[in-house]
Amino acid sequence: MVTGGKPRRILILGEGFSHDPHYGKTMRGIIRYGPDPVVAILDSARAGETREGIPIVGTVNDALCFDPTVAIVGVATQGGRFPPAWRELLKSCIAKGLDVENGLHEFISEDPELMQLATQFGVELRDLRKPPADLNVPTGANLELDTKIVLTVGSDCAIGKKTVAVELDLEARRRGLESVFVPTGQTGIAIAGWGIAVDAVVADFLAGAAERLVVEGVERGGRLLFVEGQGSLVHPMYSGVTLGLVHGAAPHAFVLCHLAGSTEIEGCPGHPIPPLPVLVEIHERISLPRRPAKVACIALNTSPIESDDEAQAAIAATEAEIGLPTDDPVRFGAGRLLDAILTRL
Amino acid sequence: MVTGGKPRRILILGEGFSHDPHYGKTMRGIIRYGPDPVVAILDSARAGETREGIPIVGTVNDALCFDPTVAIVGVATQGGRFPPAWRELLKSCIAKGLDVENGLHEFISEDPELMQLATQFGVELRDLRKPPADLNVPTGANLELDTKIVLTVGSDCAIGKKTVAVELDLEARRRGLESVFVPTGQTGIAIAGWGIAVDAVVADFLAGAAERLVVEGVERGGRLLFVEGQGSLVHPMYSGVTLGLVHGAAPHAFVLCHLAGSTEIEGCPGHPIPPLPVLVEIHERISLPRRPAKVACIALNTSPIESDDEAQAAIAATEAEIGLPTDDPVRFGAGRLLDAILTRL
Repeated sequence: MVTGGKPRRILILGEGFSHDPHYGKTMRGIIRYGPDPVVAILDSARAGETREGIPIVGTVNDALCFDPTVAIVGVATQGGRFPPAWRELLKSCIAKGLDVENGLHEFISEDPELMQLATQFGVELRDLRKPPADLNVPTGANLELDTKIVLTVGSDCAIGKKTVAVELDLEARRRGLESVFVPTGQTGIAIAGWGIAVDAVVADFLAGAAERLVVEGVERGGRLLFVEGQGSLVHPMYSGVTLGLVHGAAPHAFVLCHLAGSTEIEGCPGHPIPPLPVLVEIHERISLPRRPAKVACIALNTSPIESDDEAQAAIAATEAEIGLPTDDPVRFGAGRLLDAILTRL
Repeated sequence: MVTGGKPRRILILGEGFSHDPHYGKTMRGIIRYGPDPVVAILDSARAGETREGIPIVGTVNDALCFDPTVAIVGVATQGGRFPPAWRELLKSCIAKGLDVENGLHEFISEDPELMQLATQFGVELRDLRKPPADLNVPTGANLELDTKIVLTVGSDCAIGKKTVAVELDLEARRRGLESVFVPTGQTGIAIAGWGIAVDAVVADFLAGAAERLVVEGVERGGRLLFVEGQGSLVHPMYSGVTLGLVHGAAPHAFVLCHLAGSTEIEGCPGHPIPPLPVLVEIHERISLPRRPAKVACIALNTSPIESDDEAQAAIAATEAEIGLPTDDPVRFGAGRLLDAILTRL
C-alpha cells in the first residue's frame, strides 16, 4: 500500500504486550500477512531483541533510524481501551512525523489534543475500527450475490479465524480462483486495506455491516469469499458480534476453528468450551433458516503442540471424532481444507 | 415521572405510522404502561379520531390545547432513522416549548440546528437510545447476583416481548414478590425511566450493557428480574443483539414469545420462522454454557384471533404441541405463566 506516493514502512507499537499471545494478535497478523514492511517493533521491556527478524526498540526515537512512516497500534486490549501510558507514546509518534493507525474502540481521530498535534506536525490519524456513518440494517442483497461465501467461526477468540481465512484465500488464489479475503476486524483491515470492524458498529447494524462487506467482496471480483470470523457463539462477551456476522454475511459454509486442547474460554475462567460436535451442531442450527450452512471442515490450531508428528496425530484424532476433514492450515498448508470446502460448496 | 417539579403530560408523535402494527409499538407501550398521561397523539392522516380514548391531532398547534409538556417520538422505524419530514415536526415541537424524547438511532441531542433551537426555547432534548459513554465488556458480575433472571425471547420482532416482561413483572409485584422490570429498548426506557437500549451500543459492548442492566435491576431491589427481550435469534437483521442480550443478561429461564399463526419474519419475505419446538431447542442450546437456561413457558400473542374461545383453543394446541405451559398474558392475565416460571426457577 502506498499513501501519497511514499512507500509505507511500519513501526508496530506493542508496548507492554509483545509477549502476550492474545493481545499481540494484531501485531502478528500485520507482520505475517501485511503488504508493507514492518521495520521495527516498540516494546521497552524487550528493547534490543528481535522478533521474526524485526528489531525491537525501546522508544520512538530509537525507531527513527529504521525510517518508519506510520505507527500502527499493535495490540487488541480487552474492551478496546487504551492503556493510560499510551497517550504519551502516541504524542511522541505524532511529534516525530509518523502517521498513526489505531484499531482500538477509542478513536484517536476524535481526540482534540491528538488531532491538534497531528495538524501541527502534518501527519494523519486513522481509526481502523471507526465504522462508516451510513450503516443500516441489511437489505437482502447478501442473499442475491453471484458468489460462494465461506465464514471462519471458532470455539474462542484469538485462535486463528482471521489467519485461516487469509491462508484459504491465498491458497485459492494460487490455484487461480477468483477469491477475496473479506476483513471484518482491525487487523484484517490493516492487512487488506479495506473492510469494516463489525465489532465497533452500532449493534442494530451488525448484520447490515456484514452484508455490506460481502457485497464489496463481490465488487472486488470475488466469486469465492473467505470472510474473517469474529468472537465465538459460545463466548460470554462477544457472541452477539459473532451471530450478527453469521446472519449478515450469510455464508454457504463454515470453517470451524479450534485451538488444540483448549476446553475453557481464554480469560473467562469457568466458561467451558462445548465439545466440538456440539459446536458444529450449534453453528449449523443457528445459521440463517433462509440459507442453512454446514461446517465444511475443521481448522485445528496445533501451535501448542511441539512436534509435527504429534500435531498430525491430534488432527487425525479430531477428524475421526467429528467426521469432518481437519487440518492446521498454518502448519501444514491450506490445501486439504480448501479441497474440503470446494467439494461441499 | 416528574421532571423539574412539573408533571409530565405526553404528546406522542406518530405522524404517518399510527396505523402500522409494527412501527407503532413504541406508542402502544407508552400508552399502555407508561406512568404519565398521554394527552394527545399527532398523526395528520387521522386527525379528529381518537385512539384508546386519546385525541389524535394534525399539528403541534392543535395539540397545545391539551397542555403537553413533552413530545415523544412514538415510532420505531427500521434502522432507526428519521423520516425526512420529521425534522420540521421536531422543530415545531421545540418552538412551542415542548421537551422532546427520541428513541431512534439518530440522536437529536447531537444535531446542531435542533440543539441551538432547544437552547433558544429553553427545552430539553433527550435521546433514549444514547448509550452510556463508559460501557465495556462484561465483568462476570452477571453470574454472581443474588437474583433470578427471566428473559423474554421470541420468534420475531414486535410481537410482545416487552409487553410480556411488563405483565409478568406487574403480576409478580401484585403477589408481593420483589420483582423488577429491566428495560433494554427505547420504549421500555420511556416506560420505566431507566435502562439502556442495547441495540444502540457498540457491538462489542452488547453483553456488557446487558450485564450492567441486570446488576442495576438488583440494585433497584429485584430478587426476580424480568428482562425485556430484543429481536430474535432467527431474525436476519437483529439476531446479534438478541444473542448479546442472552449471554450478557445470563437468564435462569426464558419465556418464548410467539405471534399465533406467524410462519415468516415480518418484513423479511422468504425468511421462515422455524417451528416452535426448534426455537425452544435453539434457545436452550445457545444459552451460556456456564448458565444453561430452559424455556419455562410460551407466551402466545393471540391478538390476530378475534374470539376468546378460538384464542384459548390456539393456546391449548400450542401447549399440547410443545409440552410447555402456554398462555396469552395480555388477553388472559399473566398468572399461569408466572406460576410456570416460579416452578421452574
